Amino acid sequence: MLILTRDEIEPLIDWTLAAEAVRAAYIAVSEGRVSLPPVGHITFPAGADCHIKYGHIADDPVFVIKVATGFPANARFGLPTGNGLSLVLSAQTGAVEAMLHDEMMLTDIRTGLGGAIASRAIARSDSRRILIVGTGVQARRQVQAHSALFGGDVVFTLWGRKTEMALAVVDELAQVAEISLADDLETACAQAEIIVTATGATKALIASRWVQPGTHITAVGADAPGKRELETALINRADRLFCDLLAQSLDHGEFEGVHRARLPNGGNITELGDVLRDPARGRKTDDEITIADLTGLAAQDIAIARVVLQAHESLRT
Amino acid sequence: MLILTRDEIEPLIDWTLAAEAVRAAYIAVSEGRVSLPPVGHITFPAGADCHIKYGHIADDPVFVIKVATGFPANARFGLPTGNGLSLVLSAQTGAVEAMLHDEMMLTDIRTGLGGAIASRAIARSDSRRILIVGTGVQARRQVQAHSALFGGDVVFTLWGRKTEMALAVVDELAQVAEISLADDLETACAQAEIIVTATGATKALIASRWVQPGTHITAVGADAPGKRELETALINRADRLFCDLLAQSLDHGEFEGVHRARLPNGGNITELGDVLRDPARGRKTDDEITIADLTGLAAQDIAIARVVLQAHESLRT
Repeated sequence: MLILTRDEIEPLIDWTLAAEAVRAAYIAVSEGRVSLPPVGHITFPAGADCHIKYGHIADDPVFVIKVATGFPANARFGLPTGNGLSLVLSAQTGAVEAMLHDEMMLTDIRTGLGGAIASRAIARSDSRRILIVGTGVQARRQVQAHSALFGGDVVFTLWGRKTEMALAVVDELAQVAEISLADDLETACAQAEIIVTATGATKALIASRWVQPGTHITAVGADAPGKRELETALINRADRLFCDLLAQSLDHGEFEGVHRARLPNGGNITELGDVLRDPARGRKTDDEITIADLTGLAAQDIAIARVVLQAHESLRT
Repeated sequence: MLILTRDEIEPLIDWTLAAEAVRAAYIAVSEGRVSLPPVGHITFPAGADCHIKYGHIADDPVFVIKVATGFPANARFGLPTGNGLSLVLSAQTGAVEAMLHDEMMLTDIRTGLGGAIASRAIARSDSRRILIVGTGVQARRQVQAHSALFGGDVVFTLWGRKTEMALAVVDELAQVAEISLADDLETACAQAEIIVTATGATKALIASRWVQPGTHITAVGADAPGKRELETALINRADRLFCDLLAQSLDHGEFEGVHRARLPNGGNITELGDVLRDPARGRKTDDEITIADLTGLAAQDIAIARVVLQAHESLRT
């Protein structure tokens, strides 16, 4: 069994190749070529939990089981709140071929890439002002991924509930992107063309009235029942809703409320893979409000694991 | 992260300690102290599949995720059909503490122990003649586990669909148990006081009319929807039914048919942990036919993983 640690994995990741692989994974899901059983989930005290995502792309020689833990209380002890690993198993013999002990890094990167892929596919093509909401690892990864996919001419603002943390993230990212602190979330929302929410919020952060026509919102924070970043009125007002996987989004994503309340928009949600296959299924006009809710798919975990393994293989030969 | 291979794990297992740990795990389940989310399952061509069992015993410092693959076609290439590993994670920080790459051995052993614990708890206390049905790894483990728990005065017969394979298993086990070949399954069933079925059968192997009053049957083969070892008439005739976990047994165990057909016995199934806590909930008279269906619990995987880690720890200190 090949075992790679986080430090060994990090230099193996090419963001461009990884973005292509994640994009192809969404399309494979849309084409019905991915076996994606329901996500495993177990909870612990103090809001901690563990997700198990696993799946198999038809005819692939391997399948992947990804374990990701989230223990918010770790922050108090200066420990990372996310952890985990991916197992790569042979789909021909069931043997475990590799363990990528990435400690959540691959999940963070593929989630970042998923967000940027959604923003790129659905936002107005002339969008340049991106607001990032959140100060955690995922907020940083969203800046990295949007930078990588949009190129150098985008401008970021970043807002966090704790200003000093937001400022620290802005300082840290100033080397890789044009980024500044957003003092006020309402104003920042009104000025943004793309809003990316990457928080662990359980109550809506973004009010509908703050958002201008034409804005695209990518929401990546809500990944478990009860987590919410957007006001229900905003979801209901949006012209088009998108998600990575309908079943997950309605069960434990941002659109959970839409499902529960059976709002009119509940029947109007397009999967990202369908938009990537057929752009006509995305945004129709410049003044539409669009929302993409991403809960994370095993298909992305398979994609990023393959990028790592292929890079490792090519180094060896 | 501690990583142990199969060869490193094998000498760490004390069957007596492991049996105690597995027994305690059933009781913990019965007491409602174990978080046991639904088993993850993904299928592959040619009847291959992967199960993911995971759970947490309340207040335990760790939790366990067990991955087990079954690829029947491996046998054609001389490869083991079962494979897998257990991950041990901190329930306090979510960090991965250990990987037990046991290649299915721990699952096989804890399943053997579960079968013997059920037989011991539910069969007539004077039972001495044990019929093992099956020639695979699990048939061997059932002989080992029943020998360990019943002591030296039990006598085994073993039946397999392929006589030459059955003979090979009997020869192999002759060193560890008093065991002989059963030529005819009907006769062997009639003579047995305990019948242990450990096959991958998808059609009933054991007919109701072959089984004498007072017989106990432990069925460990059926572990996925569609697998069956016992005739529905036999399940319906049994005086008492037992299982490890009701939800699993009705979903993908031997009692699936009871559930589907809503036979009278469907409402009369006791969990093993309840019998271990209170023997009055087990067999009532010597002439009852009893059936225990075991589908396998993450609680057993937690128990056996702890036995391995504790043995490893005590060797180091």
